[in-house]
Amino acid sequence: MPHVSDTATLLIACPDQPGLVAAVANFVAGNGGNITHADQHVDAEFAVFFQRVEFELAGFSIPRDDIATRFAPIAEQFGMSFQLKFSDEVARVAILVSKASHCLVDLLARGKNGELPARIELVLSNHADHADIASFYGVPYHHLPVGAANKGEQEARMLALLAHTRIDLVVLARYMQVLSAEFVAHYPRRIINIHHSFLPAFSGGRPYHQAYVRGVKIIGATAHYATADLDDGPIIEQDVARISHRETVDDLMAKGRDLERVVLARAIRYHLEHRVLVYGNKTVVFA
Amino acid sequence: MPHVSDTATLLIACPDQPGLVAAVANFVAGNGGNITHADQHVDAEFAVFFQRVEFELAGFSIPRDDIATRFAPIAEQFGMSFQLKFSDEVARVAILVSKASHCLVDLLARGKNGELPARIELVLSNHADHADIASFYGVPYHHLPVGAANKGEQEARMLALLAHTRIDLVVLARYMQVLSAEFVAHYPRRIINIHHSFLPAFSGGRPYHQAYVRGVKIIGATAHYATADLDDGPIIEQDVARISHRETVDDLMAKGRDLERVVLARAIRYHLEHRVLVYGNKTVVFA
Amino acid sequence: MPHVSDTATLLIACPDQPGLVAAVANFVAGNGGNITHADQHVDAEFAVFFQRVEFELAGFSIPRDDIATRFAPIAEQFGMSFQLKFSDEVARVAILVSKASHCLVDLLARGKNGELPARIELVLSNHADHADIASFYGVPYHHLPVGAANKGEQEARMLALLAHTRIDLVVLARYMQVLSAEFVAHYPRRIINIHHSFLPAFSGGRPYHQAYVRGVKIIGATAHYATADLDDGPIIEQDVARISHRETVDDLMAKGRDLERVVLARAIRYHLEHRVLVYGNKTVVFA
Amino acid sequence: MPHVSDTATLLIACPDQPGLVAAVANFVAGNGGNITHADQHVDAEFAVFFQRVEFELAGFSIPRDDIATRFAPIAEQFGMSFQLKFSDEVARVAILVSKASHCLVDLLARGKNGELPARIELVLSNHADHADIASFYGVPYHHLPVGAANKGEQEARMLALLAHTRIDLVVLARYMQVLSAEFVAHYPRRIINIHHSFLPAFSGGRPYHQAYVRGVKIIGATAHYATADLDDGPIIEQDVARISHRETVDDLMAKGRDLERVVLARAIRYHLEHRVLVYGNKTVVFA
Repeated sequence: MPHVSDTATLLIACPDQPGLVAAVANFVAGNGGNITHADQHVDAEFAVFFQRVEFELAGFSIPRDDIATRFAPIAEQFGMSFQLKFSDEVARVAILVSKASHCLVDLLARGKNGELPARIELVLSNHADHADIASFYGVPYHHLPVGAANKGEQEARMLALLAHTRIDLVVLARYMQVLSAEFVAHYPRRIINIHHSFLPAFSGGRPYHQAYVRGVKIIGATAHYATADLDDGPIIEQDVARISHRETVDDLMAKGRDLERVVLARAIRYHLEHRVLVYGNKTVVFA
Repeated sequence: MPHVSDTATLLIACPDQPGLVAAVANFVAGNGGNITHADQHVDAEFAVFFQRVEFELAGFSIPRDDIATRFAPIAEQFGMSFQLKFSDEVARVAILVSKASHCLVDLLARGKNGELPARIELVLSNHADHADIASFYGVPYHHLPVGAANKGEQEARMLALLAHTRIDLVVLARYMQVLSAEFVAHYPRRIINIHHSFLPAFSGGRPYHQAYVRGVKIIGATAHYATADLDDGPIIEQDVARISHRETVDDLMAKGRDLERVVLARAIRYHLEHRVLVYGNKTVVFA
Repeated sequence: MPHVSDTATLLIACPDQPGLVAAVANFVAGNGGNITHADQHVDAEFAVFFQRVEFELAGFSIPRDDIATRFAPIAEQFGMSFQLKFSDEVARVAILVSKASHCLVDLLARGKNGELPARIELVLSNHADHADIASFYGVPYHHLPVGAANKGEQEARMLALLAHTRIDLVVLARYMQVLSAEFVAHYPRRIINIHHSFLPAFSGGRPYHQAYVRGVKIIGATAHYATADLDDGPIIEQDVARISHRETVDDLMAKGRDLERVVLARAIRYHLEHRVLVYGNKTVVFA
Repeated sequence: MPHVSDTATLLIACPDQPGLVAAVANFVAGNGGNITHADQHVDAEFAVFFQRVEFELAGFSIPRDDIATRFAPIAEQFGMSFQLKFSDEVARVAILVSKASHCLVDLLARGKNGELPARIELVLSNHADHADIASFYGVPYHHLPVGAANKGEQEARMLALLAHTRIDLVVLARYMQVLSAEFVAHYPRRIINIHHSFLPAFSGGRPYHQAYVRGVKIIGATAHYATADLDDGPIIEQDVARISHRETVDDLMAKGRDLERVVLARAIRYHLEHRVLVYGNKTVVFA
């Protein structure tokens, strides 16, 4: 969505109660803001209220550096947790990848075409294969081999590189190494993984082989936040494709690559446009 | 969505301007209302604002008969057109049908199962075939044959029956007669038609034959409000199914029936839950 | 597909080897038969060959009662197992159903409209609720209550009714009782169940609740042959629908009903048109 | 599908008549060939028979250079037109592209990853923008500006380059210039275009704008053989994506890009694996 001017986005979660929408709307309208997008959701089971409000900074009477402070009393009154984001802050993204390059290449091309509201700052891989394409797109590439012997050390090096580059979002673009709970804890809800199955079906390794053996008629791909429990984090996006008995495991993998690319790119975009709220193990996606 | 109590729903359209969300939210919250669902949309091209706000009547301090009057000043201030609906007002629906019964039978069964928030009060047909199934579901059935000679007269009889039964919504469930502009004008945006193609492709007659001849790989169905220009009204819902060269016209028609049933039922539910706003020749569907 | 004349269908499975297609084609062509549909598949992993050949009986020089005998030497030569079916033999179907009636009503309507190549001969239910609709369609209805105390006895009564009515195919149209291995063994690959999830995800009870808790973005339905291991039999057909955080468990169940109806009807049609071959725990569906 | 050995593929079309399948199967089996894939289709309307037979060259007693000659008498007997293709003959592909690079980049990456059974030999563009990415993948790039004044001349230069490079297949990967009938005539059924709509809906220019104005709920993309009549050639593949009122024209274009990439790649693969037969204005795709 093209914006006439830069915008601020409030992402809010709190216990459901009367007056929430009015309080936030008054804060924006009372300070001269124009809401360009607003969406809310009440989870009836847990009585939690979620809201996303995006408004133009042009004409807003509160300086951007003071908006959070000025909103804090409203947040306190209703017990809100909130995030405040600005559309001109471009996120810094790192991509982790192993052998298969299809998601990496797709994301690099999207980055260059302006299809992702982000800068890809870093590519890390346990293989050397993708240095040339990263270089073509002008993105630093680090080859960090990993084995049973150096796993902790390799993760430490990756964390150092991520920290040094001030990365906001880590994308596991078919990174086939299991990350430790410690690693994941450094980027809570800021690591997005693409799993090559329609989770929760076929979690674990070699999902296309599992799908082939089970004889399903539809395969899928799932983008989710990484958590300590592998393949179990909050799902952001999924998609599927129909298959038949004619298709071999290789055919499933080929169809799967097309799903993985699109599902991962969509999930990253939702995250970067501040459209995703996590609660428990689920997401609200204000798409 | 099950409601703890009865609700009121405001459907609003007006020129986009700052303060709209706050004004409506304050009206609800300031009178003790609890918003259970709210959604809004700004059409950037025409600068039109659309909103759907649903709130609980329990605890709301304005008597339901006075809500519209009390909201009127706000509407006037912002140049809003608005509708006010109550969840305990069950819509009265008439179904028009010709030879093919699959949509009729599906809707009657949904009506009985509580899958449609409506009472089916009337079935009108230019054929006698469906009297028994209508009777099974306890719905009056009128056989009104039509030909070139009596078209005006038959429409007049249908209009009389619709008026006498105080029908809110007319559903064309594969009614294969072209309705006159005069007929349609009696129920603006209150006649829903199911067209058996993915409009605007294959408008007009025999769309499955057209699709077969053109060799498309996907067919569809479209539910839309009927307008004087056939097949050209605002689209409410569409869906599609993949086909192959193996499928004959009869196969397309069979697959199409499954699409038509579901697409028509979805569109009717959106309309009856007051989720649809029409502007120009398009719809906003707050699904 | 409408046939000019009645047809015979050969369904063949055997070890893959050169000359199979030629041998079968020569058998048909050499006896004056015209093939109207042929499809084959080789499972590369197990080196098994599958074939479906449908040919017109008109002009075929072997009397229909002798075809199997005359084909037997070819079958023996190649180690084939085969089935021979005639298009004018209409299958006899029984439907088992519990409380939810949407699949039952859908199948009865399809049966009447000629959308299923079968006669529905029997409806069995552990509830009394659906006697009226079965009666409307002229199908005998048996109410067979079941509890822990009489489970064996109830199954025995069902088996007796199925046998007495010479049922070819048993459809579990949301029949919520677990059938014993003994019961299933009476109708190997002739019981089709609709499971209200995208198997293997959410096997077991209350799948829509499971899907809601897991926060998936897509739900599904699966039609499969019933085996002794619940929800684990060969999958015939699946389909899916997109959902969002807005949807409650009730909404998932409503969307699911639309999937279940269509997926179950498709699987039954594939089976009745002799398009399904089972090997191991998978199916070949010559759709 | 990975093959143990190289294969030959026969693509056959002829008037439907008894004995066709047997004749072809005998030709293969009688010469020691093993069929790895066979599929056939009869168009009932036109009584035309189509077949695709793929068999292993290893063990086949006829030298590959003599296969066509030896098959000719069978073809003559049944009035067949046929093509004979070998799996080790890698097609030579040229890509024509204008400003938008998403399909070009996708195809180049697939080419490198072995996802396309072809060599991309040439990229031609009326813009200079994509020389760097073509160069990265080692593919010659020619910038051939075009305007009203030099259209004939530019086409002549393109034809010369295509001829000189002995191109088998021309891919219009969002090439936004209308090609003359003369140009198209040089490569009958060997030019594949991606149209950014669900044809026949929204043929012509700016289809995403048309879709936005019409208010459809689903958009699509169509890959088809180019013919003299623009957007009217035989359709090879289509796919669709759901949209809502929230999406701007830019959003439609972004979703569309994901469709276009996948639909075009699938159509190219079908063509290159000799899975497509054209008759009249339709295709049989033995997928």
